[in-house]
Amino acid sequence: MTGTERLSLNQITTRGWSLPEAVRGCVEAGIPAIGLWRDKVAETGLARSAKLVRDAGLAVSSLCRGGFLTAADPALRRTALADNLRAIEEAAELGTDTLVMVVGGLPDGSRDLASARSRVRDAFAELAPHAGDFGVRLAIEPLHPMFCADRAVVSTLGQALDLAEQFPARQVGVVVDSYHVWWDPQLAEQIARAEGRIASYQVCDWTLPLPADALLGRGHVGDGHIDFRTLTDRVAAAGYRGYVEVEIFNEEVWNTPGEETLRTVVARHLAHVAGR
Amino acid sequence: MTGTERLSLNQITTRGWSLPEAVRGCVEAGIPAIGLWRDKVAETGLARSAKLVRDAGLAVSSLCRGGFLTAADPALRRTALADNLRAIEEAAELGTDTLVMVVGGLPDGSRDLASARSRVRDAFAELAPHAGDFGVRLAIEPLHPMFCADRAVVSTLGQALDLAEQFPARQVGVVVDSYHVWWDPQLAEQIARAEGRIASYQVCDWTLPLPADALLGRGHVGDGHIDFRTLTDRVAAAGYRGYVEVEIFNEEVWNTPGEETLRTVVARHLAHVAGR
Repeated sequence: MTGTERLSLNQITTRGWSLPEAVRGCVEAGIPAIGLWRDKVAETGLARSAKLVRDAGLAVSSLCRGGFLTAADPALRRTALADNLRAIEEAAELGTDTLVMVVGGLPDGSRDLASARSRVRDAFAELAPHAGDFGVRLAIEPLHPMFCADRAVVSTLGQALDLAEQFPARQVGVVVDSYHVWWDPQLAEQIARAEGRIASYQVCDWTLPLPADALLGRGHVGDGHIDFRTLTDRVAAAGYRGYVEVEIFNEEVWNTPGEETLRTVVARHLAHVAGR
Repeated sequence: MTGTERLSLNQITTRGWSLPEAVRGCVEAGIPAIGLWRDKVAETGLARSAKLVRDAGLAVSSLCRGGFLTAADPALRRTALADNLRAIEEAAELGTDTLVMVVGGLPDGSRDLASARSRVRDAFAELAPHAGDFGVRLAIEPLHPMFCADRAVVSTLGQALDLAEQFPARQVGVVVDSYHVWWDPQLAEQIARAEGRIASYQVCDWTLPLPADALLGRGHVGDGHIDFRTLTDRVAAAGYRGYVEVEIFNEEVWNTPGEETLRTVVARHLAHVAGR
Protein backbone atom coordinates (compact mmCIF):
# COMPACT_ATOMS: atom_id res chain seq x y z
CA MET A 1 0.00 0.00 0.00
CA THR A 2 1.40 3.40 -0.87
CA GLY A 3 2.35 5.29 2.24
CA THR A 4 2.79 2.30 4.51
CA GLU A 5 6.30 1.41 3.34
CA ARG A 6 7.81 2.47 6.68
CA LEU A 7 4.99 1.37 8.96
CA SER A 8 5.61 -1.30 11.57
CA LEU A 9 3.24 -2.89 14.06
CA ASN A 10 4.67 -3.29 17.52
CA GLN A 11 2.85 -6.42 18.52
CA ILE A 12 1.89 -5.13 21.99
CA THR A 13 -0.69 -3.04 20.09
CA THR A 14 -2.54 -6.26 19.25
CA ARG A 15 -1.86 -7.89 22.56
CA GLY A 16 -4.66 -10.41 22.23
CA TRP A 17 -3.02 -11.91 19.16
CA SER A 18 -0.39 -14.61 19.21
CA LEU A 19 2.71 -14.06 17.12
CA PRO A 20 1.35 -16.11 14.17
CA GLU A 21 -1.89 -14.10 14.29
CA ALA A 22 0.00 -10.80 14.38
CA VAL A 23 2.17 -11.86 11.43
CA ARG A 24 -0.90 -12.80 9.41
CA GLY A 25 -2.63 -9.56 10.45
CA CYS A 26 0.29 -7.46 9.19
CA VAL A 27 0.41 -9.26 5.86
CA GLU A 28 -3.32 -8.82 5.33
CA ALA A 29 -3.22 -5.15 6.32
CA GLY A 30 -0.25 -4.39 4.09
CA ILE A 31 2.05 -3.56 7.00
CA PRO A 32 5.58 -4.53 5.99
CA ALA A 33 7.26 -4.81 9.41
CA ILE A 34 6.65 -5.93 12.95
CA GLY A 35 8.20 -5.22 16.35
CA LEU A 36 8.23 -8.41 18.39
CA TRP A 37 7.96 -9.04 22.13
CA ARG A 38 10.02 -11.72 23.82
CA ASP A 39 7.10 -13.25 25.71
CA LYS A 40 5.15 -13.70 22.48
CA VAL A 41 8.22 -15.12 20.76
CA ALA A 42 8.73 -17.57 23.63
CA GLU A 43 5.10 -18.67 23.41
CA THR A 44 5.49 -19.57 19.73
CA GLY A 45 9.11 -20.70 19.97
CA LEU A 46 12.15 -18.75 18.81
CA ALA A 47 13.01 -20.74 15.67
CA ARG A 48 9.39 -21.01 14.58
CA SER A 49 8.82 -17.27 15.16
CA ALA A 50 11.88 -16.41 13.10
CA LYS A 51 10.69 -18.66 10.27
CA LEU A 52 7.13 -17.31 10.39
CA VAL A 53 8.12 -13.67 9.99
CA ARG A 54 10.74 -14.54 7.37
CA ASP A 55 8.36 -16.66 5.33
CA ALA A 56 5.74 -13.90 5.53
CA GLY A 57 8.23 -11.43 4.09
CA LEU A 58 8.00 -9.15 7.13
CA ALA A 59 10.91 -7.14 8.44
CA VAL A 60 11.46 -7.22 12.20
CA SER A 61 11.88 -3.62 13.21
CA SER A 62 12.80 -4.36 16.83
CA LEU A 63 12.70 -6.86 19.65
CA CYS A 64 11.15 -5.67 22.93
CA ARG A 65 12.87 -5.78 25.27
CA GLY A 66 15.99 -6.03 27.27
CA GLY A 67 17.00 -3.91 30.22
CA PHE A 68 16.01 -3.85 33.90
CA LEU A 69 19.62 -3.38 34.84
CA THR A 70 19.38 -1.40 38.08
CA ALA A 71 19.52 -4.17 40.70
CA ALA A 72 22.20 -3.60 43.33
CA ASP A 73 22.13 -7.20 44.54
CA PRO A 74 24.93 -9.12 42.78
CA ALA A 75 22.86 -12.25 42.14
CA LEU A 76 19.96 -10.27 40.68
CA ARG A 77 22.42 -8.32 38.61
CA ARG A 78 24.01 -11.46 37.17
CA THR A 79 20.57 -12.85 36.34
CA ALA A 80 19.64 -9.61 34.55
CA LEU A 81 22.86 -9.53 32.54
CA ALA A 82 22.45 -13.17 31.50
CA ASP A 83 18.89 -12.48 30.41
CA ASN A 84 20.05 -9.54 28.32
CA LEU A 85 22.72 -11.66 26.65
CA ARG A 86 19.97 -14.10 25.68
CA ALA A 87 17.81 -11.22 24.40
CA ILE A 88 20.67 -10.07 22.14
CA GLU A 89 20.99 -13.55 20.66
CA GLU A 90 17.22 -13.80 20.19
CA ALA A 91 17.21 -10.48 18.36
CA ALA A 92 19.91 -11.74 16.01
CA GLU A 93 18.07 -14.98 15.35
CA LEU A 94 14.83 -13.10 14.66
CA GLY A 95 16.64 -11.01 12.07
CA THR A 96 16.43 -7.61 13.74
CA ASP A 97 19.35 -5.32 14.53
CA THR A 98 17.48 -3.47 17.28
CA LEU A 99 16.95 -4.56 20.87
CA VAL A 100 14.84 -2.04 22.78
CA MET A 101 16.21 -1.46 26.29
CA VAL A 102 14.02 -0.29 29.19
CA VAL A 103 16.67 0.22 31.80
CA GLY A 104 14.71 -0.36 35.01
CA GLY A 105 13.58 1.71 37.99
CA LEU A 106 14.79 2.10 41.55
CA PRO A 107 15.43 -1.17 43.38
CA ASP A 108 12.92 -1.92 46.15
CA GLY A 109 13.36 0.47 49.04
CA SER A 110 16.09 2.52 47.36
CA ARG A 111 15.96 6.28 46.85
CA ASP A 112 19.39 6.45 45.26
CA LEU A 113 18.78 7.46 41.65
CA ALA A 114 22.42 8.32 40.98
CA SER A 115 23.63 4.84 41.88
CA ALA A 116 20.90 3.15 39.88
CA ARG A 117 21.89 5.22 36.85
CA SER A 118 25.52 4.37 37.36
CA ARG A 119 24.73 0.64 37.45
CA VAL A 120 22.88 1.00 34.15
CA ARG A 121 26.00 2.52 32.63
CA ASP A 122 28.16 -0.32 33.92
CA ALA A 123 25.75 -2.91 32.56
CA PHE A 124 25.84 -1.32 29.12
CA ALA A 125 29.63 -1.53 29.21
CA GLU A 126 29.30 -5.28 29.66
CA LEU A 127 26.52 -5.81 27.13
CA ALA A 128 27.45 -3.46 24.29
CA PRO A 129 30.42 -5.39 22.84
CA HIS A 130 28.40 -8.59 22.96
CA ALA A 131 25.56 -6.88 21.10
CA GLY A 132 28.04 -5.60 18.53
CA ASP A 133 29.33 -9.14 17.97
CA PHE A 134 25.82 -10.25 17.07
CA GLY A 135 25.10 -7.26 14.83
CA VAL A 136 22.50 -6.00 17.29
CA ARG A 137 22.21 -2.46 18.56
CA LEU A 138 21.03 -1.79 22.12
CA ALA A 139 18.38 0.90 21.77
CA ILE A 140 18.04 2.85 25.02
CA GLU A 141 14.47 3.94 25.51
CA PRO A 142 14.00 6.97 27.73
CA LEU A 143 10.65 6.49 29.43
CA HIS A 144 8.33 9.27 30.50
CA PRO A 145 9.45 10.67 33.89
CA MET A 146 6.31 9.28 35.49
CA PHE A 147 7.95 5.85 35.17
CA CYS A 148 11.25 6.87 36.77
CA ALA A 149 10.69 5.12 40.11
CA ASP A 150 9.39 1.81 38.83
CA ARG A 151 10.51 1.29 35.24
CA ALA A 152 13.26 3.46 33.84
CA VAL A 153 15.73 5.77 35.52
CA VAL A 154 16.55 7.08 32.04
CA SER A 155 13.88 9.73 31.51
CA THR A 156 14.95 12.03 28.70
CA LEU A 157 16.42 11.70 25.23
CA GLY A 158 19.36 13.86 26.31
CA GLN A 159 20.11 11.50 29.18
CA ALA A 160 19.81 8.48 26.86
CA LEU A 161 22.28 10.11 24.47
CA ASP A 162 24.70 10.91 27.29
CA LEU A 163 24.74 7.18 27.96
CA ALA A 164 24.71 5.98 24.34
CA GLU A 165 27.58 8.25 23.32
CA GLN A 166 29.90 6.39 25.65
CA PHE A 167 29.74 3.48 23.20
CA PRO A 168 30.17 2.99 19.45
CA ALA A 169 27.05 4.00 17.50
CA ARG A 170 26.71 0.54 15.97
CA GLN A 171 26.49 -0.97 19.48
CA VAL A 172 24.26 1.49 21.33
CA GLY A 173 21.52 3.77 20.03
CA VAL A 174 18.35 5.38 21.35
CA VAL A 175 14.61 5.04 20.88
CA VAL A 176 12.52 8.10 20.16
CA ASP A 177 9.06 7.21 21.47
CA SER A 178 6.56 10.02 21.00
CA TYR A 179 4.68 9.23 24.20
CA HIS A 180 7.76 9.43 26.40
CA VAL A 181 9.47 12.49 24.94
CA TRP A 182 6.86 14.79 23.41
CA TRP A 183 6.78 17.20 26.39
CA ASP A 184 10.54 17.75 26.59
CA PRO A 185 11.55 21.41 26.15
CA GLN A 186 14.93 20.20 24.84
CA LEU A 187 13.39 17.78 22.35
CA ALA A 188 14.28 19.59 19.12
CA GLU A 189 17.95 19.98 20.01
CA GLN A 190 18.25 16.45 21.41
CA ILE A 191 16.72 14.84 18.31
CA ALA A 192 19.16 16.81 16.17
CA ARG A 193 21.98 15.65 18.41
CA ALA A 194 20.77 12.04 18.01
CA GLU A 195 21.80 11.88 14.35
CA GLY A 196 23.27 8.44 13.74
CA ARG A 197 21.97 7.15 17.07
CA ILE A 198 18.25 6.80 16.45
CA ALA A 199 17.68 3.05 16.36
CA SER A 200 13.89 3.14 16.60
CA TYR A 201 11.04 5.62 16.23
CA GLN A 202 7.93 4.51 18.08
CA VAL A 203 4.62 6.32 18.06
CA CYS A 204 1.40 6.54 20.03
CA ASP A 205 -0.45 9.55 21.38
CA TRP A 206 -0.69 11.25 24.78
CA THR A 207 -4.36 11.13 25.75
CA LEU A 208 -6.10 12.30 28.89
CA PRO A 209 -7.25 11.49 31.46
CA LEU A 210 -4.54 9.08 32.50
CA PRO A 211 -6.14 5.73 33.41
CA ALA A 212 -5.83 4.05 36.81
CA ASP A 213 -2.85 2.13 35.48
CA ALA A 214 -0.76 4.95 34.02
CA LEU A 215 1.07 2.47 31.83
CA LEU A 216 -2.06 1.94 29.76
CA GLY A 217 -2.92 5.51 28.83
CA ARG A 218 -1.57 5.59 25.30
CA GLY A 219 -3.81 6.38 22.38
CA HIS A 220 -3.86 5.90 18.65
CA VAL A 221 -1.85 8.47 16.72
CA GLY A 222 -4.12 11.48 16.27
CA ASP A 223 -6.27 10.90 19.35
CA GLY A 224 -4.26 13.10 21.67
CA HIS A 225 -1.97 16.07 22.15
CA ILE A 226 1.16 15.18 20.19
CA ASP A 227 2.12 17.03 17.01
CA PHE A 228 3.28 14.08 14.89
CA ARG A 229 4.08 16.12 11.80
CA THR A 230 6.68 18.21 13.60
CA LEU A 231 8.08 15.27 15.53
CA THR A 232 8.37 13.07 12.44
CA ASP A 233 10.03 15.87 10.50
CA ARG A 234 12.62 16.27 13.24
CA VAL A 235 13.37 12.56 13.36
CA ALA A 236 13.73 12.54 9.56
CA ALA A 237 15.99 15.60 9.65
CA ALA A 238 18.23 13.68 12.06
CA GLY A 239 18.70 11.12 9.31
CA TYR A 240 16.40 8.38 10.52
CA ARG A 241 15.07 6.31 7.62
CA GLY A 242 13.87 3.23 9.49
CA TYR A 243 10.42 1.98 10.40
CA VAL A 244 7.82 3.92 12.34
CA GLU A 245 6.62 1.44 14.92
CA VAL A 246 3.14 1.85 16.39
CA GLU A 247 3.23 0.75 20.03
CA ILE A 248 0.04 1.24 22.03
CA PHE A 249 -0.58 0.14 25.62
CA ASN A 250 -4.30 0.62 26.12
CA GLU A 251 -6.97 -1.74 27.48
CA GLU A 252 -9.60 -0.42 25.10
CA VAL A 253 -7.35 -0.94 22.09
CA TRP A 254 -6.47 -4.39 23.40
CA ASN A 255 -10.18 -5.24 23.65
CA THR A 256 -10.74 -4.26 20.01
CA PRO A 257 -10.51 -6.97 17.31
CA GLY A 258 -6.99 -6.94 15.88
CA GLU A 259 -8.11 -6.40 12.28
CA GLU A 260 -9.98 -3.27 13.30
CA THR A 261 -6.98 -1.99 15.27
CA LEU A 262 -4.74 -2.45 12.24
CA ARG A 263 -7.17 -0.54 10.03
CA THR A 264 -6.96 2.35 12.49
CA VAL A 265 -3.17 2.06 12.70
CA VAL A 266 -2.84 2.26 8.92
CA ALA A 267 -5.30 5.14 8.57
CA ARG A 268 -3.63 7.20 11.29
CA HIS A 269 -0.19 6.52 9.87
CA LEU A 270 -1.32 7.81 6.48
CA ALA A 271 -3.00 10.85 8.03
CA HIS A 272 -0.36 11.94 10.55
CA VAL A 273 3.00 10.36 9.80
CA ALA A 274 3.48 9.11 6.25
CA GLY A 275 5.13 11.26 3.64
CA ARG A 276 7.43 13.11 6.02
CA MET B 1 9.36 23.56 68.52
CA THR B 2 13.01 23.00 67.69
CA GLY B 3 13.47 21.90 64.12
CA THR B 4 10.23 23.35 62.77
CA GLU B 5 11.52 26.91 62.34
CA ARG B 6 11.41 26.64 58.55
CA LEU B 7 8.33 24.44 58.21
CA SER B 8 5.29 25.75 56.41
CA LEU B 9 1.91 24.15 55.80
CA ASN B 10 0.55 24.60 52.32
CA GLN B 11 -3.11 24.67 53.10
CA ILE B 12 -4.10 22.29 50.29
CA THR B 13 -2.62 19.59 52.55
CA THR B 14 -5.51 20.16 54.96
CA ARG B 15 -8.05 20.73 52.25
CA GLY B 16 -11.04 20.05 54.49
CA TRP B 17 -10.09 22.97 56.71
CA SER B 18 -11.18 26.54 56.14
CA LEU B 19 -8.51 29.21 56.34
CA PRO B 20 -9.30 30.05 60.01
CA GLU B 21 -9.10 26.36 60.89
CA ALA B 22 -5.79 25.95 59.08
CA VAL B 23 -4.37 29.01 60.86
CA ARG B 24 -5.41 27.65 64.24
CA GLY B 25 -4.06 24.22 63.32
CA CYS B 26 -0.64 25.65 62.47
CA VAL B 27 -0.45 27.61 65.71
CA GLU B 28 -1.39 24.57 67.78
CA ALA B 29 1.09 22.33 65.92
CA GLY B 30 3.94 24.81 66.25
CA ILE B 31 4.18 25.41 62.51
CA PRO B 32 5.33 29.00 61.96
CA ALA B 33 4.20 29.59 58.39
CA ILE B 34 1.43 28.82 55.95
CA GLY B 35 1.03 28.75 52.18
CA LEU B 36 -2.40 30.05 51.25
CA TRP B 37 -4.75 29.23 48.37
CA ARG B 38 -6.78 31.89 46.67
CA ASP B 39 -10.07 29.97 46.82
CA LYS B 40 -9.71 29.53 50.57
CA VAL B 41 -8.79 33.18 50.98
CA ALA B 42 -11.83 34.22 48.94
CA GLU B 43 -14.07 32.04 51.10
CA THR B 44 -12.91 33.81 54.26
CA GLY B 45 -12.43 37.21 52.68
CA LEU B 46 -9.13 38.83 51.74
CA ALA B 47 -8.86 41.41 54.53
CA ARG B 48 -10.05 39.00 57.21
CA SER B 49 -7.64 36.32 56.00
CA ALA B 50 -4.75 38.76 56.10
CA LYS B 51 -5.66 39.82 59.64
CA LEU B 52 -6.13 36.24 60.84
CA VAL B 53 -2.68 35.08 59.77
CA ARG B 54 -1.06 38.28 61.00
CA ASP B 55 -2.75 38.13 64.40
CA ALA B 56 -1.77 34.48 64.71
CA GLY B 57 1.86 35.43 64.14
CA LEU B 58 2.15 33.20 61.09
CA ALA B 59 4.32 34.02 58.11
CA VAL B 60 2.73 33.53 54.70
CA SER B 61 5.27 31.54 52.69
CA SER B 62 3.37 31.77 49.41
CA LEU B 63 0.06 32.34 47.71
CA CYS B 64 -1.18 29.63 45.34
CA ARG B 65 -1.65 30.43 42.59
CA GLY B 66 -1.46 32.51 39.52
CA GLY B 67 -0.77 31.36 35.99
CA PHE B 68 -2.83 29.60 33.31
CA LEU B 69 -1.43 31.91 30.71
CA THR B 70 -1.48 29.78 27.57
CA ALA B 71 -4.80 30.77 26.02
CA ALA B 72 -4.49 31.88 22.39
CA ASP B 73 -7.91 33.51 22.34
CA PRO B 74 -7.46 37.25 23.03
CA ALA B 75 -10.46 37.55 25.35
CA LEU B 76 -9.42 34.52 27.40
CA ARG B 77 -5.91 35.90 27.52
CA ARG B 78 -7.05 39.30 28.81
CA THR B 79 -9.16 37.59 31.46
CA ALA B 80 -6.18 35.51 32.57
CA LEU B 81 -3.87 38.51 32.76
CA ALA B 82 -6.40 40.50 34.77
CA ASP B 83 -6.82 37.61 37.17
CA ASN B 84 -3.07 37.41 37.65
CA LEU B 85 -2.87 41.12 38.37
CA ARG B 86 -5.46 40.57 41.12
CA ALA B 87 -3.48 37.60 42.45
CA ILE B 88 -0.37 39.78 42.73
CA GLU B 89 -2.28 42.36 44.74
CA GLU B 90 -3.79 39.66 46.94
CA ALA B 91 -0.35 38.26 47.65
CA ALA B 92 0.86 41.70 48.71
CA GLU B 93 -2.14 42.26 50.97
CA LEU B 94 -1.65 38.82 52.57
CA GLY B 95 1.93 39.73 53.37
CA THR B 96 3.75 37.26 51.17
CA ASP B 97 6.39 38.04 48.55
CA THR B 98 5.78 34.83 46.63
CA LEU B 99 3.04 34.11 44.11
CA VAL B 100 3.25 30.54 42.82
CA MET B 101 2.65 30.38 39.06
CA VAL B 102 1.33 27.26 37.32
CA VAL B 103 1.62 28.37 33.74
CA GLY B 104 -1.15 26.33 32.08
CA GLY B 105 -1.36 23.51 29.54
CA LEU B 106 -2.22 23.33 25.87
CA PRO B 107 -5.36 25.18 24.87
CA ASP B 108 -8.25 22.90 23.87
CA GLY B 109 -7.54 21.16 20.61
CA SER B 110 -4.05 22.60 20.22
CA ARG B 111 -0.91 20.52 19.75
CA ASP B 112 1.37 23.52 19.46
CA LEU B 113 3.60 23.41 22.53
CA ALA B 114 6.07 25.95 21.21
CA SER B 115 3.42 28.64 20.77
CA ALA B 116 1.90 27.94 24.18
CA ARG B 117 5.33 28.36 25.74
CA SER B 118 5.90 31.54 23.85
CA ARG B 119 2.61 33.01 25.10
CA VAL B 120 3.67 32.21 28.66
CA ARG B 121 6.84 34.19 28.10
CA ASP B 122 4.89 37.15 26.74
CA ALA B 123 2.51 37.07 29.69
CA PHE B 124 5.40 37.15 32.15
CA ALA B 125 6.73 40.20 30.38
CA GLU B 126 3.44 41.94 31.12
CA LEU B 127 3.08 40.70 34.67
CA ALA B 128 6.62 40.84 36.05
CA PRO B 129 6.98 44.64 36.40
CA HIS B 130 3.58 44.82 38.08
CA ALA B 131 4.63 42.10 40.51
CA GLY B 132 7.84 44.00 41.23
CA ASP B 133 5.85 47.14 42.02
CA PHE B 134 3.97 45.23 44.69
CA GLY B 135 7.06 43.56 46.14
CA VAL B 136 5.85 40.19 44.95
CA ARG B 137 7.91 37.65 43.08
CA LEU B 138 6.31 35.44 40.42
CA ALA B 139 7.50 31.93 41.26
CA ILE B 140 7.39 29.73 38.17
CA GLU B 141 6.55 26.18 39.13
CA PRO B 142 7.71 23.53 36.68
CA LEU B 143 5.17 20.74 36.91
CA HIS B 144 5.91 17.07 36.35
CA PRO B 145 5.90 16.29 32.61
CA MET B 146 2.77 14.19 33.06
CA PHE B 147 0.91 17.49 33.47
CA CYS B 148 2.31 19.09 30.32
CA ALA B 149 -0.84 18.77 28.20
CA ASP B 150 -3.38 19.96 30.74
CA ARG B 151 -1.66 22.06 33.39
CA ALA B 152 1.82 23.35 32.75
CA VAL B 153 3.88 23.57 29.58
CA VAL B 154 6.85 24.37 31.82
CA SER B 155 8.07 20.91 32.81
CA THR B 156 11.63 21.18 34.12
CA LEU B 157 13.58 23.41 36.44
CA GLY B 158 15.97 24.24 33.61
CA GLN B 159 13.11 25.43 31.45
CA ALA B 160 11.68 27.48 34.32
CA LEU B 161 15.07 29.11 34.79
CA ASP B 162 15.39 29.84 31.06
CA LEU B 163 12.17 31.79 31.46
CA ALA B 164 12.88 33.39 34.83
CA GLU B 165 16.32 34.63 33.77
CA GLN B 166 14.72 36.90 31.21
CA PHE B 167 13.52 39.06 34.12
CA PRO B 168 15.04 40.61 37.22
CA ALA B 169 15.47 38.10 40.06
CA ARG B 170 13.31 40.16 42.39
CA GLN B 171 10.41 39.94 39.93
CA VAL B 172 10.58 36.33 38.76
CA GLY B 173 11.86 33.24 40.53
CA VAL B 174 11.21 29.50 40.49
CA VAL B 175 9.63 26.88 42.70
CA VAL B 176 11.50 23.69 43.48
CA ASP B 177 8.77 21.14 44.21
CA SER B 178 10.19 17.72 45.03
CA TYR B 179 7.31 15.87 43.40
CA HIS B 180 7.72 17.59 40.07
CA VAL B 181 11.49 17.61 39.72
CA TRP B 182 12.95 14.66 41.64
CA TRP B 183 13.41 12.47 38.53
CA ASP B 184 15.30 15.06 36.46
CA PRO B 185 18.77 13.90 35.41
CA GLN B 186 19.82 17.58 35.27
CA LEU B 187 18.45 18.37 38.72
CA ALA B 188 21.74 18.89 40.56
CA GLU B 189 23.11 21.32 38.01
CA GLN B 190 19.83 23.19 37.61
CA ILE B 191 19.37 23.68 41.35
CA ALA B 192 22.92 25.04 41.54
CA ARG B 193 22.13 27.33 38.63
CA ALA B 194 18.98 28.51 40.45
CA GLU B 195 20.99 30.36 43.11
CA GLY B 196 19.17 33.60 43.83
CA ARG B 197 16.06 32.45 41.95
CA ILE B 198 14.55 29.87 44.30
CA ALA B 199 11.42 31.55 45.62
CA SER B 200 9.82 28.48 47.14
CA TYR B 201 10.78 24.95 48.16
CA GLN B 202 7.77 22.64 48.30
CA VAL B 203 7.85 19.03 49.39
CA CYS B 204 5.80 15.87 49.16
CA ASP B 205 6.77 12.38 48.10
CA TRP B 206 6.43 10.36 44.89
CA THR B 207 4.38 7.29 45.80
CA LEU B 208 3.13 4.43 43.64
CA PRO B 209 0.83 3.33 42.22
CA LEU B 210 -0.44 6.55 40.70
CA PRO B 211 -4.14 6.95 41.52
CA ALA B 212 -6.90 7.25 38.93
CA ASP B 213 -6.57 11.04 39.19
CA ALA B 214 -2.83 11.46 38.72
CA LEU B 215 -3.00 14.85 40.39
CA LEU B 216 -3.75 13.21 43.72
CA GLY B 217 -0.87 10.77 43.98
CA ARG B 218 1.37 12.70 46.32
CA GLY B 219 2.45 11.24 49.61
CA HIS B 220 3.78 12.45 52.93
CA VAL B 221 7.50 13.08 52.96
CA GLY B 222 9.16 9.72 53.62
CA ASP B 223 6.39 7.56 52.17
CA GLY B 224 7.87 7.32 48.68
CA HIS B 225 10.90 7.32 46.45
CA ILE B 226 12.40 10.77 46.89
CA ASP B 227 15.72 11.32 48.67
CA PHE B 228 14.87 14.44 50.69
CA ARG B 229 18.24 14.72 52.40
CA THR B 230 20.11 15.10 49.13
CA LEU B 231 17.47 17.36 47.60
CA THR B 232 17.29 19.63 50.64
CA ASP B 233 21.08 19.85 50.80
CA ARG B 234 21.18 20.96 47.17
CA VAL B 235 18.52 23.60 47.70
CA ALA B 236 20.41 24.88 50.74
CA ALA B 237 23.70 24.90 48.83
CA ALA B 238 21.99 27.13 46.26
CA GLY B 239 21.45 29.65 49.03
CA TYR B 240 17.79 29.07 49.77
CA ARG B 241 16.98 29.92 53.39
CA GLY B 242 13.20 30.22 53.17
CA TYR B 243 10.39 27.99 54.31
CA VAL B 244 9.93 24.37 53.37
CA GLU B 245 6.30 24.14 52.38
CA VAL B 246 4.49 20.81 52.65
CA GLU B 247 1.99 20.55 49.81
CA ILE B 248 0.13 17.25 49.47
CA PHE B 249 -2.64 16.46 46.99
CA ASN B 250 -4.03 13.13 48.17
CA GLU B 251 -7.61 12.01 48.88
CA GLU B 252 -6.52 9.81 51.76
CA VAL B 253 -4.62 12.65 53.41
CA TRP B 254 -7.58 14.94 52.79
CA ASN B 255 -9.88 12.44 54.53
CA THR B 256 -7.64 12.39 57.60
CA PRO B 257 -8.43 14.80 60.48
CA GLY B 258 -6.28 17.90 60.07
CA GLU B 259 -4.66 17.65 63.49
CA GLU B 260 -3.44 14.15 62.66
CA THR B 261 -2.13 15.28 59.27
CA LEU B 262 -0.17 18.08 60.93
CA ARG B 263 1.38 15.67 63.43
CA THR B 264 2.59 13.58 60.50
CA VAL B 265 3.80 16.67 58.64
CA VAL B 266 5.86 17.78 61.64
CA ALA B 267 7.27 14.32 62.33
CA ARG B 268 8.31 13.79 58.71
CA HIS B 269 9.84 17.24 58.50
CA LEU B 270 11.98 16.49 61.55
CA ALA B 271 12.96 13.06 60.23
CA HIS B 272 13.71 13.88 56.60
CA VAL B 273 14.20 17.61 56.06
CA ALA B 274 15.07 19.60 59.20
CA GLY B 275 18.63 20.38 60.10
CA ARG B 276 19.88 20.49 56.54
